[in-house]
Amino acid sequence: MKIAVLPGDGIGPEVTAEAVAVLEAMALPGLQLVEGDVGGAAYKRHGHPLPEATLEMARGADAILFGAVGDPDCDTLERHLRPEQAILGLRKHLGLFANLRPARVFAGLEHLSPLRADIAGGLDMLIVRELTGDVYFGAKGRRVSEAGEHEGWDAMSYSDSEVRRIAHVGFRAAATGGHKLTSVDKANVLETSQLWRDVVIEVAAEYPDVDLEHMYVDNAAMQVVSHPDRFGVVLTGNLFGDILSDLASAAVGSIGLLPSASLGERETAYGTFGLYEPIHGSAPDIAGQGKANPLATILSAAMMLRHSFGLESEATRIENAVAAALADGFMGGDLGGSHGTAAIGEAVRARL
Amino acid sequence: MKIAVLPGDGIGPEVTAEAVAVLEAMALPGLQLVEGDVGGAAYKRHGHPLPEATLEMARGADAILFGAVGDPDCDTLERHLRPEQAILGLRKHLGLFANLRPARVFAGLEHLSPLRADIAGGLDMLIVRELTGDVYFGAKGRRVSEAGEHEGWDAMSYSDSEVRRIAHVGFRAAATGGHKLTSVDKANVLETSQLWRDVVIEVAAEYPDVDLEHMYVDNAAMQVVSHPDRFGVVLTGNLFGDILSDLASAAVGSIGLLPSASLGERETAYGTFGLYEPIHGSAPDIAGQGKANPLATILSAAMMLRHSFGLESEATRIENAVAAALADGFMGGDLGGSHGTAAIGEAVRARL
Ligand SMILES: CC(C)[C@H](C(=O)O)[C@@H](O)C(=O)O
Ligand SMILES: CC(C)[C@H](C(=O)O)[C@@H](O)C(=O)O
Repeated sequence: MKIAVLPGDGIGPEVTAEAVAVLEAMALPGLQLVEGDVGGAAYKRHGHPLPEATLEMARGADAILFGAVGDPDCDTLERHLRPEQAILGLRKHLGLFANLRPARVFAGLEHLSPLRADIAGGLDMLIVRELTGDVYFGAKGRRVSEAGEHEGWDAMSYSDSEVRRIAHVGFRAAATGGHKLTSVDKANVLETSQLWRDVVIEVAAEYPDVDLEHMYVDNAAMQVVSHPDRFGVVLTGNLFGDILSDLASAAVGSIGLLPSASLGERETAYGTFGLYEPIHGSAPDIAGQGKANPLATILSAAMMLRHSFGLESEATRIENAVAAALADGFMGGDLGGSHGTAAIGEAVRARL
Repeated sequence: MKIAVLPGDGIGPEVTAEAVAVLEAMALPGLQLVEGDVGGAAYKRHGHPLPEATLEMARGADAILFGAVGDPDCDTLERHLRPEQAILGLRKHLGLFANLRPARVFAGLEHLSPLRADIAGGLDMLIVRELTGDVYFGAKGRRVSEAGEHEGWDAMSYSDSEVRRIAHVGFRAAATGGHKLTSVDKANVLETSQLWRDVVIEVAAEYPDVDLEHMYVDNAAMQVVSHPDRFGVVLTGNLFGDILSDLASAAVGSIGLLPSASLGERETAYGTFGLYEPIHGSAPDIAGQGKANPLATILSAAMMLRHSFGLESEATRIENAVAAALADGFMGGDLGGSHGTAAIGEAVRARL
């Protein structure tokens, strides 16, 4: 069980350190950890946000624990050298096509949601976002039109096999969950979306007990805040998924608690190859101060045990320890508490 | 002062009738109204959602009052015959590039917002959405890749002049408003967005007293629900604007009250040529029952007087009458009241 730990920038190193300590405290037999450079930190050391050595290390692992990337020092670099390119590069090179983003209000933390309590209570969804296609990875560039106009352009597309494999992930999640799947697109305007919808309808035939509905993305954004209880699993493309998954996280109100998994097609000896990261960013403003909330990263490590190593009960053990630490008031400033990174990590380990 | 009234489908005819009655009650000298078919209604009568005659009528007018389009009977038609194509066609053929969407919680109606009262109170923004470019109007289609894969594709692009003219609309609105402009893009991924950002920065030099910030669309979606008070004017492209303007409307919580303006470049004798419509849809489920809330359409007519006819005080007169009717409890089921379409329209006219 080989895990590549890529701490990255800002608070990334602090929060991954706590997650690693939790994994070590579990004393899982055969666990091996290696660490690599990524993001702005890697650029500063090696001249590239995703050095070849890091990519090789990631390829050789069964799973990746990722902190965060983003460094204001790198904001003026050319696009291909910016820290975010590391995460895009990992997704593409490792074929991490399925992003799973649970958005659920933690018991006792309803007051953190910006939504009214009666509405926030109904928020419990899983967003399944396609992660290696769409306008993200199409051709792009600048050109001068016939009329002499400068233009920026990007090619958006999906192929039927790309849609099919992510649709299966969504339908499987719905089949074992609440049997409700909402596929989000903009088929009234986009051909890419119309193909998406056609393929989703085709795949639906294999999951007769899943209740499928189609929703336009503008409507979906509205429903996430006004009627979140109508969603179970939300299946969507890369661009709409980027927006909707962050929107759902904001509706939860505690982004310091939200984990994510990005799964590939490759099966390892224990489960599915994947990358696990908190949904929050590198928060350079509080980096190095021991203030960051490590719980989203610790919960990402739990997702890793579940999806990449088939260790369901160990995953639940971590999740229960996190819930217990929260219930006992171990929260940082982001949740209205006053505990630091190390104290929160320690509290989780004490409750394993 | 020639107004083309295009009632459209579902509740469109009911709500535009009330708005027309309000305009007539104002007894504006020289006001001339003509009516045309659009949407599913036009398809059923003429075989096309935007008949040539309607387009000609719209072209010949100074402003358009639009109801809503969308008809379940037309859902299975080919895309180019569906009702929504009428609104896309009007935008494109008439060059209606600037969509203005105010999102503000009405005094006394804070409880309708799905946001917590302390957060909803800070929601008062104007979304300026580009409306004739982006992936909406690029080339699109199906193709078979070299690997034999079926693909759906759409071309996304912006030219510098397209960005420049909508940026000026945004900066002008910010300059006369709160001096705060947030430009929303996805420049960390899209070349179209990077060009957008470059041009917005260029235009900013002409508005030294406007405070410009750039925000990625995923973050913007989060901030709309968690910190709406940080926004004044939001400037964005067609696709992101579609999502964010509906999101902001949902955050207000009373979409039956929200108007919109879509302005072109053409100046008429009195102001700017434009199309005015409520942001809600055709609501086929309650069509023809006299239950629809006409206030968003009446407020759209007020925006028309302001922008297309330079009648600022007349616009305010309508807006005040609407506020007074609301304060007196004239609300439909959508706002928790029990008044019908005609009674609400009548209440506004009585308070002009
Ligand atoms: C950093 C950025 C390129 C990335 C994305 O848009 O996918 C991020 O927003 C995310 O969602 O992981
Ligand atoms: C009907 C649809 C094509 C349209 C759009 O996406 O622009 C609508 O959602 C809107 O915002 O006016």
